[in-house]
Amino acid sequence: MKTACVILIGNEILSGRTQESNLQYLGAGLNSVGIRVMAGRVIPDITEVISEAVNECRAEYDYLFTTGGIGPTHDDITADAVARAFGVPLVRDEQAVAALRTHYTSDDELTGPRLKMCDVPEGAALIHNPISKAPGFRIENVYVLAGVPVIMQAMFEGLKGDLTGGAPVLSRSIAAFVGESLLAAGLSDIQNAHASVEIGSYPFIREGKLGASLVIRSTDGAAVEAAAEAVREMIVSLGAEPLEE
Amino acid sequence: MKTACVILIGNEILSGRTQESNLQYLGAGLNSVGIRVMAGRVIPDITEVISEAVNECRAEYDYLFTTGGIGPTHDDITADAVARAFGVPLVRDEQAVAALRTHYTSDDELTGPRLKMCDVPEGAALIHNPISKAPGFRIENVYVLAGVPVIMQAMFEGLKGDLTGGAPVLSRSIAAFVGESLLAAGLSDIQNAHASVEIGSYPFIREGKLGASLVIRSTDGAAVEAAAEAVREMIVSLGAEPLEE
Repeated sequence: MKTACVILIGNEILSGRTQESNLQYLGAGLNSVGIRVMAGRVIPDITEVISEAVNECRAEYDYLFTTGGIGPTHDDITADAVARAFGVPLVRDEQAVAALRTHYTSDDELTGPRLKMCDVPEGAALIHNPISKAPGFRIENVYVLAGVPVIMQAMFEGLKGDLTGGAPVLSRSIAAFVGESLLAAGLSDIQNAHASVEIGSYPFIREGKLGASLVIRSTDGAAVEAAAEAVREMIVSLGAEPLEE
Repeated sequence: MKTACVILIGNEILSGRTQESNLQYLGAGLNSVGIRVMAGRVIPDITEVISEAVNECRAEYDYLFTTGGIGPTHDDITADAVARAFGVPLVRDEQAVAALRTHYTSDDELTGPRLKMCDVPEGAALIHNPISKAPGFRIENVYVLAGVPVIMQAMFEGLKGDLTGGAPVLSRSIAAFVGESLLAAGLSDIQNAHASVEIGSYPFIREGKLGASLVIRSTDGAAVEAAAEAVREMIVSLGAEPLEE
């Protein structure tokens, strides 16, 4: 099992101005290549806080992904903070400048703020940005991505194939219009009898009716199916219908 | 300035199954009473991980809020983990049982899983749940809330009035259909000239056109207005129209 941490950088997430959505995308995408996100951190635009979080998390997990703070404005400080975390200088990457040149054809357009987006920690490899060209970068096990979801997603899809994961986690989700309290005892028994899977119970209200989604997860597909069958039987025994999700 | 941390508990958030939304609500709500969320953590349903995160964060911030993991099923382990963090036993709260009795009138309905939701760390005070009655709880500066957004929100609105904050952060947001790169130099000058405010730049694409929202924040309303006026003038000087948001 390979593990990852995602650091989401930006005051706008903490103040409630912006609804964060990159964690969900990365959680699902990394899982599909056998890498499990074990932690997320949301941190403000403060250089020391970013550097410290990067150093803590890159040591603790196989992979670290960051999103946000790599644009052209004064509040974009992620590249500098990551360079400080690694104790290396920021250097202008000529490949990044060349990539921007495909977007901005005249030298007049390659302004200081745009060139700032070509500064990466020494030793970093670029991560291609097919949308607005200003690249992300990777240094050791740290992947520094844009914060704008559509750009972050394009960067991630481009690099995903190069990641080395373990077996992907398989899952099956079965819903029932039964309150969690009525499911709890049977579910606990099933969890105990199927210790190699992880069973989660997520309550919902749909069309005014209370229910729960029961999600079974494991890298072992046969174990998932066996536990799923036990969950279906329990739901039927409670007089309800198991609904595949 | 009072500070807070929010810990979002649940494997379903890390796996990408569930789009998290409680952080945004709490970030905005806490800000409105003068408490600034300085960090968010997303952690899995693992007792030791929850206990450790609670102890780290309650020491570092004035307030700690957690969401998730207080339901009736086997994967709801937050109350136990918080009790362990404080080194106190879990005890059945008779007020919580009485609250559940208003929801479930017969003793037959007060099953073990439902009663589990009445177990709180010794010394905790209940947080009212006007929706499904199973309460949250507070122990010292740690507020333990439900994960289901509608219940979390109802719990928070009920306790918000009792929180002691500092001066609320005021903000003004001005958008322009100008790329961030063109705004960067002027914005940096304005940030330097108005050091008491925090200026954030958030790029967007609307109706196919590139632009940015410039957000000015401070507890000092006059300082916000002065910086906002400078931002408007800069946008006009670039031949664009400042759009109040």
